[in-house]
This record gives sequence, structure tokens and C-alpha cells, in this order.
Amino acid sequence: MLYEINEKAIRLENEGKKIIRLNLGDPDLATPNEIIEAAYASMKAGKTKYSSSYGESKLREKLAELHGVEAESVVITPGSKWGIFATMYLIMKTGGNIVVPTPYWTAYDLIAKSLGAQTKLLRTEMEDGWKVDLEKLEAMIDKDTRMIILNNPNNPTSKVIDTETLDGIVEIANKKGVTILSDEVYGTISFVKSKSILEYDGDHKHILTTGFSKTFSMTGWRIGYIIANKQLVDNITKLNQITINNVPVFIQEAALKGLEMQKQLATKIKEEYRERAKMASKILAKSGFSFTKPEAPFYVFPKRQGLDSEKFTLDLLDNGVAVAPGTAFGDYREHFRISLTAPREEIKTALDIISEAIG
Amino acid sequence: MLYEINEKAIRLENEGKKIIRLNLGDPDLATPNEIIEAAYASMKAGKTKYSSSYGESKLREKLAELHGVEAESVVITPGSKWGIFATMYLIMKTGGNIVVPTPYWTAYDLIAKSLGAQTKLLRTEMEDGWKVDLEKLEAMIDKDTRMIILNNPNNPTSKVIDTETLDGIVEIANKKGVTILSDEVYGTISFVKSKSILEYDGDHKHILTTGFSKTFSMTGWRIGYIIANKQLVDNITKLNQITINNVPVFIQEAALKGLEMQKQLATKIKEEYRERAKMASKILAKSGFSFTKPEAPFYVFPKRQGLDSEKFTLDLLDNGVAVAPGTAFGDYREHFRISLTAPREEIKTALDIISEAIG
Repeated sequence: MLYEINEKAIRLENEGKKIIRLNLGDPDLATPNEIIEAAYASMKAGKTKYSSSYGESKLREKLAELHGVEAESVVITPGSKWGIFATMYLIMKTGGNIVVPTPYWTAYDLIAKSLGAQTKLLRTEMEDGWKVDLEKLEAMIDKDTRMIILNNPNNPTSKVIDTETLDGIVEIANKKGVTILSDEVYGTISFVKSKSILEYDGDHKHILTTGFSKTFSMTGWRIGYIIANKQLVDNITKLNQITINNVPVFIQEAALKGLEMQKQLATKIKEEYRERAKMASKILAKSGFSFTKPEAPFYVFPKRQGLDSEKFTLDLLDNGVAVAPGTAFGDYREHFRISLTAPREEIKTALDIISEAIG
Repeated sequence: MLYEINEKAIRLENEGKKIIRLNLGDPDLATPNEIIEAAYASMKAGKTKYSSSYGESKLREKLAELHGVEAESVVITPGSKWGIFATMYLIMKTGGNIVVPTPYWTAYDLIAKSLGAQTKLLRTEMEDGWKVDLEKLEAMIDKDTRMIILNNPNNPTSKVIDTETLDGIVEIANKKGVTILSDEVYGTISFVKSKSILEYDGDHKHILTTGFSKTFSMTGWRIGYIIANKQLVDNITKLNQITINNVPVFIQEAALKGLEMQKQLATKIKEEYRERAKMASKILAKSGFSFTKPEAPFYVFPKRQGLDSEKFTLDLLDNGVAVAPGTAFGDYREHFRISLTAPREEIKTALDIISEAIG
């Protein structure tokens, strides 16, 4: 349904219609110029050849320093999605199941299906503040469970898992001997403190995947990384050697430039999204939608009793606004997801159209 | 063993020793400046966002035009290696076997192993001009054979498959209902006419994988493509959506720039490698090595009766030259592979050292 919406949006645009695109997690903010210049300088310096499937040492070292781990625990990937696929490929290719709280990013399930693994969905509710029920989680894990996938902060709810719940999840995973894959791609620009899986994990039983896309508006550059134990890092690298080989070195050097400016860039990006979230929350509340307050960029996941979000989002497109139906994130028909990835003025216009459409 | 050689080379270099690196297929020629400038202009124009998992329309259309196919038969991949992995993943993930003539690029076998598939090696011999024995090929195909992988022109021999043999291979594949994956990454810069699998294949039963790395000295940019039937192209795209998502648009636009200059660039690159091959052949012949004349860049795969190529290549490193042992390409202990990917002067020096070492 996500693709259907996107294709209809493109079709309408090709017909000359103006569509406000709030359906994808692709920031409208441009990649900072310093990052582009770093890439260009690197290309001109001849960094256009094959390179290590682990990633460049300088970048791994810088990331290790930022996360307080050893460089040998870091491997560079072409996007955080590749990190997730590669990890799941290595752990799930002979089957088994994963446990994933919903609402969730459907890529996890699509990857599992592609690998012939099962996905067990653990439903959370807006009315409970999207909290994972620890008893249900424990009951859901069986002898074939190889992985729990957390997305923290969450897409589509922009909710950060509270410390007590995360403590509980890790405790259960450790007791049951199940690996947690923690997708923290929105973590660095979270509005509230978001505890990383690394804080539990001196010996790297668990796995962090993340990327540069969201923090540095680098979605199309395809660069991310995994932090895990050395054995998994070595195995991911071997998989890289027979698949993607390496992320272009000039892209890695551009990302390194981004990290050097992280404080400045992330602060700016975070502030902009905080303002957008504040504005959106105000309008949505006034129009009678229920939702939890966004604790991170980029999404709001409002609910309206009785809404058929698939019909709603398709119809809304004809009014010039693209959002994503709740059903794209699990069994959440009464919800829809708004990506705050457009200038404030456009978001405001879109929200007015949404409020009007819902009457 | 390839990795062992490469790591020893890096270690020696770090110790301050000068090593002439003829062990990898990574051209010493820089990426043409026009391609770098095209990438930079594209980044600055904001082509830094998520994009189609099929690849950019303009690039697909240009490639379709060059190959005489429809654009819907083309999908852009991050390197030709990803094209090979993705194809094998889709066709082999439930097992089966592949048939591969040797000497061969070991990635095919490593990918098959990773997917739990079997590799059946069909030996060819220098003394027969590296010809595939069609009877042996036919006998080797069994009910579990899903794919024949051809590398034409071949790494490490730089031999082009003659038309008669290729006709025979395709006939057998069609009769047996087995897909051919034809890796033609050295095809565009071949010194002699190299027949493409596409010439047989109005209905795309078979698959072409190739890339920009070798033709445009763009190894580190990671861009290639697949030409296949629409169904496989759609399935590869779905796999792209859950893995690499898309090749950065600015890299695709840089590659498009390369294609526009293809005649000029490929001619220049081909001429340089032809001169290197001529020079190397002369010295190697004089030193009593046997080999087939290179028909494409970048390799020569000489043989010396009784040679232990693993010991030889490791020892040779201490004399400042890195080459690859024959055992890295199958059961070819008496051979080694020289990559002509260094300036002529360096190649000459290296060949003199090799001739001396072998006494």
C-alpha cells in the first residue's frame, strides 16, 4: 500500500498536480554543503577504487569513539537497511522466527519472508503509550526465536522506548538467549533521551544498526553501520565481500565530515523537526485526532475512530496530500502516518486539508 | 589465498616496502574527470535523496538503447557483483546447483556456498585454449542444475568464448531448460569481438550482468546493471527495496555521463591495456612461460610446469611484486594471475623480477 500511494502520487505529479509529499521518511532538508564538498574533494583525490569490505579505518574509529566501543566492532554498510538485511540473512537464512513489536517498519517482515523465516507480531496500542507488554513478549518467544527487532525511536509512532521497558526486554532476551537487533536510525536526533542497546552490552550480545540518512539528510547516499561483536562483524564483512563489496570511499569520507560536524548539524536538524512536530501536534489535537506526542523525528501517527485509512489516504491524494495508511505498519487501520518532511508552511497546508477531509 | 596475499602486501607496504600491486583487478587509471564533475553537479543539484530501486529512468533507457533491449529489462545494481548475488539469491536460495567452467572468479562459488547451493566445476585447460567441452557440460547438468555461469571474457584468462562454443553452450542450456548467467564485465573493452548472451536472447531466458567498473575505471563507485526478463527485473527490484534500496542518484548520473563518452573513453582504456598486454606477453614468452594471448583486459594467466604458485606468490611479495596464485581460480597450481593494472614501467619491472625469481 505504501508503494501504491507513492506511485499514485508520482502519477498525479506527472499529470501536473501539486502533491504535498508527507508519505516517505525522506527529509526535505538538503545534504549539508560541507558533506557534498568533502565527497567531491575525496573523488578528486582518487578515492574511487575498491576498498575494504569492513569500511574505512578512519570512519570506523570515529564511530567507535562516538559510541564508546572498539573499532573492530564497527562495519560500514550501504544504508542501515543493508545492515538489517545482512544481519538477518546471517542469522535467519536457515529459518526460525523473529519477534517484532507493532506498529513496525514493514521491511523487517519483508526481509524475514524473503529469507523463509517467520515473523511474530507483538501488538502495542496507542492507548498504552505504545508500551511493549513484557509478559506477552516472554510468552511469544519460543525455541525457534532467533531475534527480537526493536526500532527505537519507532517508525511510525516516533515513540522512544522508556528505560524500564527496555531494561525488561533486554532481561528477557538475555534469559532466553535471543539476540536483539536494535534499529536506532532515529536515535541521534531524538527529542528525548533514547537509551541505546549498546548501554547494556559490554560483550555485544546484541546488535545496533543505524545510519547517516536521517541525522545528516543523506538518505540517497546509502551509508549506515552496524555495531556488534567481532564475529558477526567479520561475517557481515564476508557477506559484503560477495555482495556490495564496499561503500564508495568518497561517500565514507563525506560521512566522516558529517560526524565531525555532528553537534552543529544534528542540533539544527533536531530543532527544525521539533518545531514541525509541535505545530503538527497543535493542529491535529485541535482537529480531534488522538496520538502520542512525537519524541523523535519525523513522524506523527494519529488515530481517528472508525477511519478506513487506506481509503482515506487514497482519497486524500486527490486533494493534493500524500500520507501513509496505518495498515502499512501492521493492523492499524484507524491510524495514518504523517512524515514531517516538508517545509512548515506546506505541512500546515496539508494538515488543514487533512482536517477538512476528515470533517 | 587472494586475501592472504593482499593482506601481506598491505603489511609490507605499511613497513615502508614498495610493492608493485598486480594482484587485483583494480585499474590504476583514474576515473575520468568528466565523470567526477557529473557526480558533483548532481549532488549540488540535490540528487541526494531516496530513489527508485529499479534505477533512474534515463540511465535505464540509455543502457537499453546501447544493448538493443527495452528499458524494462534493465535494473541498476551497486556493482555487477550485487547483480550476480541478487540473481543467484532469487534463483538458488532454496538450493540446487550451478555449473561453472574453471578457471573462474571464486565469488560465484562463495555466493553459492553462502546460499546453501552446490557448485559443479567444469575444468578447462590452457592447452585446449580454455575451451569448454560441450559433451562434458551436457553430462554435468542434472535435474538440480539451476544455472550455468559464464564469465566472458574470462577472469583470470582474458579469453573470449568463441562463437561456436557459445552457440553450443546456449543450445545445451535451452535444451535442458537451464538459465545462463553471463558475467560480461570485461566485454565492452575486449580486444576481440566478444559475443554477448543478449545476441541469442529475444525473450530473455538468460541473464546479463555487467558494470561500469572496468570500462570507466569506476571500481570503487559500485555501479553495475542486469539485463533480464521483466519478471526477474521486478524481483531483483523487490530485493533491492529490502536491501540496498537504490544506487545513489549522483552515481547513476555520473555513470550516464560515462556512457555518453563511452566510445572515446573505452577506446583509450582498451588501447592502453592492449599495449600492456603486448608488452607483458613478449617478456613472459621470452622467459619461457606458457599462456594464451590475452583477448581482453586486464589479466594474463601464465603457467610454468611444476610451479607451486602459492609458495611462489608469497615469496614474490618479498621481492616487491604482488600477483595472485592460480589456486585462487580453481585447481590451477602451476598458474598465476598477473593484473596489468599498473603503469607500463612498473609492469616491466615486475615481470623482470618474476622472470628472475622463477630462474
